[in-house]
Amino acid sequence: MVIIMKPDFTEQQLKDAIGAMEAYGVQVMVSQGSETTILGAEGDASALNQEQLSQLAGVERVMRVSEPYKKANRKYHPDDSVIQIGAHTTIGGTQLAIIAGPCSVESEEQIVGVAQAVEAAGAVALRGGAYKPRTSPYAFQGKGVEGVHLLEKARAVVGLPIVTELMGPDQLPLFEETVDVIQIGARNMQNFDLLKKVGRIHKPILLKRGLSSTIEEWLMSAEYILSEGNPNVILCERGIRTFETYTRNTLDLSAVLAVKRQSHLPVVVDPSHACGQAWMVERMAMAAVAAGADGLLIEVHNNPSCALCDGAQSVTPAQFEAIMDKLRLVADCVGRTL
Amino acid sequence: MVIIMKPDFTEQQLKDAIGAMEAYGVQVMVSQGSETTILGAEGDASALNQEQLSQLAGVERVMRVSEPYKKANRKYHPDDSVIQIGAHTTIGGTQLAIIAGPCSVESEEQIVGVAQAVEAAGAVALRGGAYKPRTSPYAFQGKGVEGVHLLEKARAVVGLPIVTELMGPDQLPLFEETVDVIQIGARNMQNFDLLKKVGRIHKPILLKRGLSSTIEEWLMSAEYILSEGNPNVILCERGIRTFETYTRNTLDLSAVLAVKRQSHLPVVVDPSHACGQAWMVERMAMAAVAAGADGLLIEVHNNPSCALCDGAQSVTPAQFEAIMDKLRLVADCVGRTL
Amino acid sequence: MVIIMKPDFTEQQLKDAIGAMEAYGVQVMVSQGSETTILGAEGDASALNQEQLSQLAGVERVMRVSEPYKKANRKYHPDDSVIQIGAHTTIGGTQLAIIAGPCSVESEEQIVGVAQAVEAAGAVALRGGAYKPRTSPYAFQGKGVEGVHLLEKARAVVGLPIVTELMGPDQLPLFEETVDVIQIGARNMQNFDLLKKVGRIHKPILLKRGLSSTIEEWLMSAEYILSEGNPNVILCERGIRTFETYTRNTLDLSAVLAVKRQSHLPVVVDPSHACGQAWMVERMAMAAVAAGADGLLIEVHNNPSCALCDGAQSVTPAQFEAIMDKLRLVADCVGRTL
Amino acid sequence: MVIIMKPDFTEQQLKDAIGAMEAYGVQVMVSQGSETTILGAEGDASALNQEQLSQLAGVERVMRVSEPYKKANRKYHPDDSVIQIGAHTTIGGTQLAIIAGPCSVESEEQIVGVAQAVEAAGAVALRGGAYKPRTSPYAFQGKGVEGVHLLEKARAVVGLPIVTELMGPDQLPLFEETVDVIQIGARNMQNFDLLKKVGRIHKPILLKRGLSSTIEEWLMSAEYILSEGNPNVILCERGIRTFETYTRNTLDLSAVLAVKRQSHLPVVVDPSHACGQAWMVERMAMAAVAAGADGLLIEVHNNPSCALCDGAQSVTPAQFEAIMDKLRLVADCVGRTL
Repeated sequence: MVIIMKPDFTEQQLKDAIGAMEAYGVQVMVSQGSETTILGAEGDASALNQEQLSQLAGVERVMRVSEPYKKANRKYHPDDSVIQIGAHTTIGGTQLAIIAGPCSVESEEQIVGVAQAVEAAGAVALRGGAYKPRTSPYAFQGKGVEGVHLLEKARAVVGLPIVTELMGPDQLPLFEETVDVIQIGARNMQNFDLLKKVGRIHKPILLKRGLSSTIEEWLMSAEYILSEGNPNVILCERGIRTFETYTRNTLDLSAVLAVKRQSHLPVVVDPSHACGQAWMVERMAMAAVAAGADGLLIEVHNNPSCALCDGAQSVTPAQFEAIMDKLRLVADCVGRTL
Repeated sequence: MVIIMKPDFTEQQLKDAIGAMEAYGVQVMVSQGSETTILGAEGDASALNQEQLSQLAGVERVMRVSEPYKKANRKYHPDDSVIQIGAHTTIGGTQLAIIAGPCSVESEEQIVGVAQAVEAAGAVALRGGAYKPRTSPYAFQGKGVEGVHLLEKARAVVGLPIVTELMGPDQLPLFEETVDVIQIGARNMQNFDLLKKVGRIHKPILLKRGLSSTIEEWLMSAEYILSEGNPNVILCERGIRTFETYTRNTLDLSAVLAVKRQSHLPVVVDPSHACGQAWMVERMAMAAVAAGADGLLIEVHNNPSCALCDGAQSVTPAQFEAIMDKLRLVADCVGRTL
Repeated sequence: MVIIMKPDFTEQQLKDAIGAMEAYGVQVMVSQGSETTILGAEGDASALNQEQLSQLAGVERVMRVSEPYKKANRKYHPDDSVIQIGAHTTIGGTQLAIIAGPCSVESEEQIVGVAQAVEAAGAVALRGGAYKPRTSPYAFQGKGVEGVHLLEKARAVVGLPIVTELMGPDQLPLFEETVDVIQIGARNMQNFDLLKKVGRIHKPILLKRGLSSTIEEWLMSAEYILSEGNPNVILCERGIRTFETYTRNTLDLSAVLAVKRQSHLPVVVDPSHACGQAWMVERMAMAAVAAGADGLLIEVHNNPSCALCDGAQSVTPAQFEAIMDKLRLVADCVGRTL
Repeated sequence: MVIIMKPDFTEQQLKDAIGAMEAYGVQVMVSQGSETTILGAEGDASALNQEQLSQLAGVERVMRVSEPYKKANRKYHPDDSVIQIGAHTTIGGTQLAIIAGPCSVESEEQIVGVAQAVEAAGAVALRGGAYKPRTSPYAFQGKGVEGVHLLEKARAVVGLPIVTELMGPDQLPLFEETVDVIQIGARNMQNFDLLKKVGRIHKPILLKRGLSSTIEEWLMSAEYILSEGNPNVILCERGIRTFETYTRNTLDLSAVLAVKRQSHLPVVVDPSHACGQAWMVERMAMAAVAAGADGLLIEVHNNPSCALCDGAQSVTPAQFEAIMDKLRLVADCVGRTL
């Protein structure tokens, strides 16, 4: 934290500013020039209240120097985190993790069928929505607990770990018992109450980036989970809101690079939600792997035009297989396996 | 809902598209020109699945004609809704409702002092955060249940109804028992689980607009509450995220006009959060009243430079009194009282 | 300019960084703590190249302390600039300047008729587009030079100074000779070639804010004009691009406050373009005056539903008169006259 | 164009709406249901004025069905356009076109040195700024005409065609005579005056996407050039403005896919400007090729930390060579050569 004093500050104001910083346990370096006086904090500045300091009389500006996240910060954890999901799969190592499945679980036949198809094509986990965050209360809200049990059946048949979205704390006991990876959706990225709750369990959490959140806010939401004791956080870039309306959202692949430089946490990419159009998925998935993603979330539906939700962005099992072939080629260019 | 067929659609595809629409119980009007074939739905089209229809073979484009919200829609409820808060106050009528108080409840002395000051200046409700949504897990998270009880004490002393933010369903029984207006924060605007839960009680809900939500998404979140049975929704415009960094957010006053034309629900404006700077509050509050807001949320703190949260945007009790005087003048220009 | 060195910088890197700053003629203050080393520049830091400095080995971060604009900066020009337009009108003083007229000049009858109507209602200048920036090359592009001459005729009849948009340097001699205020449109806000050219004449320039520009970028574009020698710059807030689609753009009234605090230049507001809907103009114009605008640009058309451009946002002469009555009331609340 | 009438329209209003459409030479299909009346235009609807029609009494809503661009539209030109630049190079075919060079031309030694290095590594054209669009009038504005002549010298030595930015019409004769590809910068994407002027020559135009423009607006700017007679337009995605501040802009790779589906024009990607950080260029360049870009613009500087402009985002010649090796691998995955 660096404080720049106003040109006309008084000695008392300088003393007060120094005192306010020292109250947080940091040491203060004072650098007094003929025009500019700068205060620098030494020690753990993460508790310093930037807003409060900027309110002090005589203070012109308060600038943060270091990142506000600690446990998510690569500085304090230089090695990549590798997260175990299910018994046989990890996310964050050399091997790319492809997670596939339908937007919504609709029936046993559907979810088991899709699970078999994506497993055969090389997916390492099955995704499927049981509780669905829909803009409209009149839209299909997912099959709920029944959907979770259908996912369990699919897991029993094909052996893939299951990933599904948690929408509220009531469902947490069920999820903790049955689900392999708990997804926190984009709209709940700053549902701090829920973040704290999933921070107190030990299941891997797939944390989607908020629709218009910055990378720093996203890492701070991860920090909520990590700081409660759960180290198993997987980040998921799923497109951000921009002015462009041709695509559902705008996939921000530079965020993959930025996050992996700032943090040790693995990052997967969801091209299906980002683009909202099935024909774009192959190329954007390839681009994501080229950019350095640790894995992908791809929506696969046995019959997209009848999907109860997000059919427009789902590929068929046959298309998914073709995508996997292409991804193997790109993985090879970046020293990853699939 | 209007469907435009592709130029080269087949008779079977046309039949399928009509069938898909009729399956939702609407009647379909077919208009077949030499180049363009258009299908129009008649009847209640709100259940029609735009995404699914756009997936059908032969369909070029699906366009929604009517708004997706019903209970929030002024078409079906032409008169302004007037919401009762506490025993003596309403929001949505001719009288402007000014809700004031500190960002966070910090102590009995603080909250009672501020409550007395804002009541004396003409505020009709007391706001104060007990549970605080903070970007950082290391920042002050509010006094929690103790904060709620301090608000109750302030209410007992000054008689103003109390408004405070709900962050998770665990707190709901306490809030239902003690709080007069339950605030849903911007970051929880699409926490659909929580929206449904507050839709099942009867307390007034102050629903803040999400940081980058559209007006339609905001009204759809209100619809979640209304459709569960709670008609007491007050909307709060609190600034949206834009590129501008001089202000914390960008206050969107045209949203007040847009919402009041589309919906019967009352709209209040929070210039404090929108601008993030105390010196801007007076003028933006005046502008909000000129634009047609039904009320305001203003942050008032007895000692802003020592506030544990958001001090930069809090005005002092003396400044609040001066603002109230200015607001009376503007209220008069738009036929409102204060 | 403040430079934070990396934790592990070498003595040579420190020397290089200091040398790089001193090369710009500033003095460097070095503040060396046990963990953090900070360099502060004293003197005129406006020429310091932030990008270049941030490239130096051993440099962690470079932070600008002061605003990059000088001539537009209120620090160096504390009094409000008052700009003379035509013989009898000023913008920037106590009196509000209402500039009104059609989006496009269409015919002599139209422009003279509208000019008479707005003059009678109290407008102090006539606006009308002769050259029109249209998204489509197939849309009406304005009447060009003929349009400028029609504006001159209207001025001859009613006596109001005329404001019209310049789209390229070829038109500048004509504009310099005939037009009273030269408008630079939002899409040309960073057409630096054109800014320099209008900086070399002495006519008042109305500089619209770019569709997604920040306040600082806008002031830097004003600085381009001012630095070439033309002090007569009027800023115009006309809405910024956001996600909201109900309105054409989002009117940013807090920008009026921000600009007037940072700069001495007058600011007018264009609610017509911002909202894109005629029925919103009255209330947003009132809000703009409440916020502190020095004037307004309002689109008025004798027959909006036949307008060749932007009819949706134009009010009729009768509506304009009613708006002026409302504006007088609000002006009075903020100590302005109309 | 589809018009939806208001529920309570009159017969006269219907007649007027039909008449207003027919006035543009289209045929009108009327579809009258019990609740909804829809008008559809048949024939060339590109001249229909959506705004004007939406102003008519009795009209609820006007929706455009077809794209507003014609010459840029793949519908009317199904094959990819392949643009010739210089004598030996094309953009838009199977071979990827890598355009490289410094942000600014600084000296003969610099530009010739960089040109030799990038040519040796496989670049097919040399880029370098002579006229620089800088936010600040006090920043280095480029070497101007001298810079153009230095580019010519570099071309004479290494044989690569040269690409440089045009900032105003005064420079056009010089550019027409000397430059191989004329770049229109992001800030001038809607400088319609300049677009028309470069539409009247025959040199290839590299049209950068505006900072916050939509894909449709970008294609409409291309349409300005094409409609004046110049078919040689190359589009360049260079990142859009979003909330994210870690990167300079957000590279929108899905735009490459969207543009290539909608239009026949070639699209190149500029990862250097998009990310603003040299270390990100390799991976984002690889991702761009995976996504389907027809080429890349990469900033290469012999000594980035001394660059007069944009050093932070420039790679060294050695890094460029390494990037080219990686790009060859990815090109192979997508059936392209380099």
